[in-house]
Amino acid sequence: MPSKLLRERIAKKPGLRLSRRAQQTAEQPISYLMAQAVVNPDLISLAAGLVDHDSLPVDETLAAVTELAGDRDAARRALQYGTTQGTLRLRELVVEHLERVEGLSAREMGFDADQVVITTGSQQLLQLVSDVLLDPGDIVLVGAPDYFVYLGTLHSIGARAVGVAMDEHGLVPEALAETLEDLDRAGELDRVKLLYCVSYYQNPTGVTLADERRPAILEIVEKWSKAGRILVLEDAAYRELHYGAPGPHSIRSYDRRGDTVILTQTFSKPLAPGFKTGYSVLPRDLVGPVLRQKGNHDFGSSNFNQHLLANIMASGQYDRHVAHLRDVYRTKLTVTLESLEAEFSRWSVPAHWTRPGGGLDVWLVLPETVDTTREGDLFRRCIDKGVLYVPGEYCFPAEQVARRSDALGGPDHTLRLCFGVLPPERLREGVSRLAAATAEALGSAH
Amino acid sequence: MPSKLLRERIAKKPGLRLSRRAQQTAEQPISYLMAQAVVNPDLISLAAGLVDHDSLPVDETLAAVTELAGDRDAARRALQYGTTQGTLRLRELVVEHLERVEGLSAREMGFDADQVVITTGSQQLLQLVSDVLLDPGDIVLVGAPDYFVYLGTLHSIGARAVGVAMDEHGLVPEALAETLEDLDRAGELDRVKLLYCVSYYQNPTGVTLADERRPAILEIVEKWSKAGRILVLEDAAYRELHYGAPGPHSIRSYDRRGDTVILTQTFSKPLAPGFKTGYSVLPRDLVGPVLRQKGNHDFGSSNFNQHLLANIMASGQYDRHVAHLRDVYRTKLTVTLESLEAEFSRWSVPAHWTRPGGGLDVWLVLPETVDTTREGDLFRRCIDKGVLYVPGEYCFPAEQVARRSDALGGPDHTLRLCFGVLPPERLREGVSRLAAATAEALGSAH
Repeated sequence: MPSKLLRERIAKKPGLRLSRRAQQTAEQPISYLMAQAVVNPDLISLAAGLVDHDSLPVDETLAAVTELAGDRDAARRALQYGTTQGTLRLRELVVEHLERVEGLSAREMGFDADQVVITTGSQQLLQLVSDVLLDPGDIVLVGAPDYFVYLGTLHSIGARAVGVAMDEHGLVPEALAETLEDLDRAGELDRVKLLYCVSYYQNPTGVTLADERRPAILEIVEKWSKAGRILVLEDAAYRELHYGAPGPHSIRSYDRRGDTVILTQTFSKPLAPGFKTGYSVLPRDLVGPVLRQKGNHDFGSSNFNQHLLANIMASGQYDRHVAHLRDVYRTKLTVTLESLEAEFSRWSVPAHWTRPGGGLDVWLVLPETVDTTREGDLFRRCIDKGVLYVPGEYCFPAEQVARRSDALGGPDHTLRLCFGVLPPERLREGVSRLAAATAEALGSAH
Repeated sequence: MPSKLLRERIAKKPGLRLSRRAQQTAEQPISYLMAQAVVNPDLISLAAGLVDHDSLPVDETLAAVTELAGDRDAARRALQYGTTQGTLRLRELVVEHLERVEGLSAREMGFDADQVVITTGSQQLLQLVSDVLLDPGDIVLVGAPDYFVYLGTLHSIGARAVGVAMDEHGLVPEALAETLEDLDRAGELDRVKLLYCVSYYQNPTGVTLADERRPAILEIVEKWSKAGRILVLEDAAYRELHYGAPGPHSIRSYDRRGDTVILTQTFSKPLAPGFKTGYSVLPRDLVGPVLRQKGNHDFGSSNFNQHLLANIMASGQYDRHVAHLRDVYRTKLTVTLESLEAEFSRWSVPAHWTRPGGGLDVWLVLPETVDTTREGDLFRRCIDKGVLYVPGEYCFPAEQVARRSDALGGPDHTLRLCFGVLPPERLREGVSRLAAATAEALGSAH
């Protein structure tokens, strides 16, 4: 029991006063899910968005540091302050890399290294761009469903996330047009500043935006840029993790004028999250505002990591590593899809799921009678059986004004399965536990 | 000349719409100064806040990476995602380090590793804390003068920086009390949320807050925490770079209840800026809000660098390196002070300057007739002679409500000299050029 003195001290302790922004900044839901995994190590987490452990590039990293240390002056430059925008050599290597990935020259795509910005993971770029464009009440169009961490970032800034219907080919252009029409009719078009789109193997659904929809979406956005430019934030974090043919050209590649699309990618998924380094191509007139903001946040991400990554890219180790990762994840994806097929048949659960061509996520749509929410029946049964998923509810924005699509289900009967971190046998066991829990939940719901 | 088509395209390009925050985010003035140095390599920059180049820890870094790669599982954990707060091992090593630096146990100081947060340099912590506490119009008390990058961050958020008089012993407690009284009388006390203080070898003045003023300042802040808690943001970035006896105990060490002071330090100055890693001890109830905000910014700084830094600390290499750096910088400081003495005597310029016990900066106060501002006579003459400084005007907040101190001069006749990056012979030459330019400016002013 606290002493009288201590109680008096606690009593008179003046309150902490938080800013409006801090008050509206919720904990990212993934924190809870991560904590669950720590508390119970036997838990099979199909929720954690970590990457495969055994393939992390230990030798490549040591080789890059050894190479760097071999040129002492270069090594010292890596250990000194860098610039807010990022080291020129890495930005130039990023341009060459994007040229190879895209099969188009940077000149054809209309950008150069001056438009490349290096950030602390691509998440920092999502936050910076949003902070630079959005006042409270401004609108960002997102997929329904979409990447939940970004939904949290928008909420923190006080922006409105308005959902656009998605099907198995990504954002539906007609739904996008209808949403903009509806917002225009409501007198809110001038608040629309951004369309966010994870264009390859979307987190959480695994869905890739179809090739023919890319120019269509760009055209719709440009058409509705009446009150001012609506930008497209193309998050291509998973682009290089394709397990069959590469995906289509980026949305950015269709933006020849280069003033509409922000393309962001990362070294976290195709190489290693530990370096926490992402890169983006920005419209020329957005570079200054983003850099000024970043100048106040940290005036530059880790310069040392940027020099390491430049060495890893220049030596060809990056490309070899990505090729290896594709083999690793292809196996995991196959195991996950086969397990879903086998286990949900075994329990006679009527369900369907996406069959992604890459990325780290599969989206599962259960019968509407099964409640997949965090407070719902299935989640509790899964915890009991020792398996964890991300409830679909986290991935849907609060608002949706135009048509809905049934292809990917709704917030309360869907879930995301991440197959990135677990070994194949644990994936099988996890899916098995999930199917058993679902069968029970279905049984008790009937 | 652009084609008709191109001109039409440019003409109809819809405008970029920036958020209020982006509109009020100015370029950090250091960007201009850095660019000057790039354009003219013969320019001697006494403005750039870089660290000594030759002493950057190449061998220590390679050893730490080699050690890390020797335990493949540990290496993979370093390359995987970390946590938003930072790796526990580094946070624990930071606690032990602060115990050694302070000569007090963490228990005595009332904190533990749960209150330590790792950020992308200490700048990120300054931004996060400010964003979490401050709404537009809220007031932060700062020194007059103070660290200009932080003044820019406050401006970006829309907060008011109100100056408190400083003398050669740091913030003047009586001036702090008067400032709070004045703000109370003006009905603005409830907007005061934070006192910012670079407590050791302050950037830009090199001044250390006197030991006896530390508890006094804490007492004043607590006394005026009527409308809610006023926090103290103690920036101890230069603390370990002392060239004589170590500085006094931190302000944090007097905050035994642990709810008032945020202590922030960094690996950038005492080890290497390239890792871009800082650490802080937060009041317990501020940890959650800061981590939620950081969760939206990047959900964790470079995990790889944190593992490297833990190895560098645990092996004792960190302490050896800091000891070596003290020797390097002591020589540079001595050369700078001797050159100022010799050159300003030679030109018969009546000036005075600070004599710091550590850090990287000396503050120079010139006669009031010499205009040191960016647009002024001296700056132009210095560019002509090939030497660059940081004008004092950047370091003074826009507002000051209570008494002023003459000890450190005013915004338009002072300047900051950074002696960190240049070798001794360049420091001598830079000070010589500066003194010659000042003599000319004085001559033409009379």
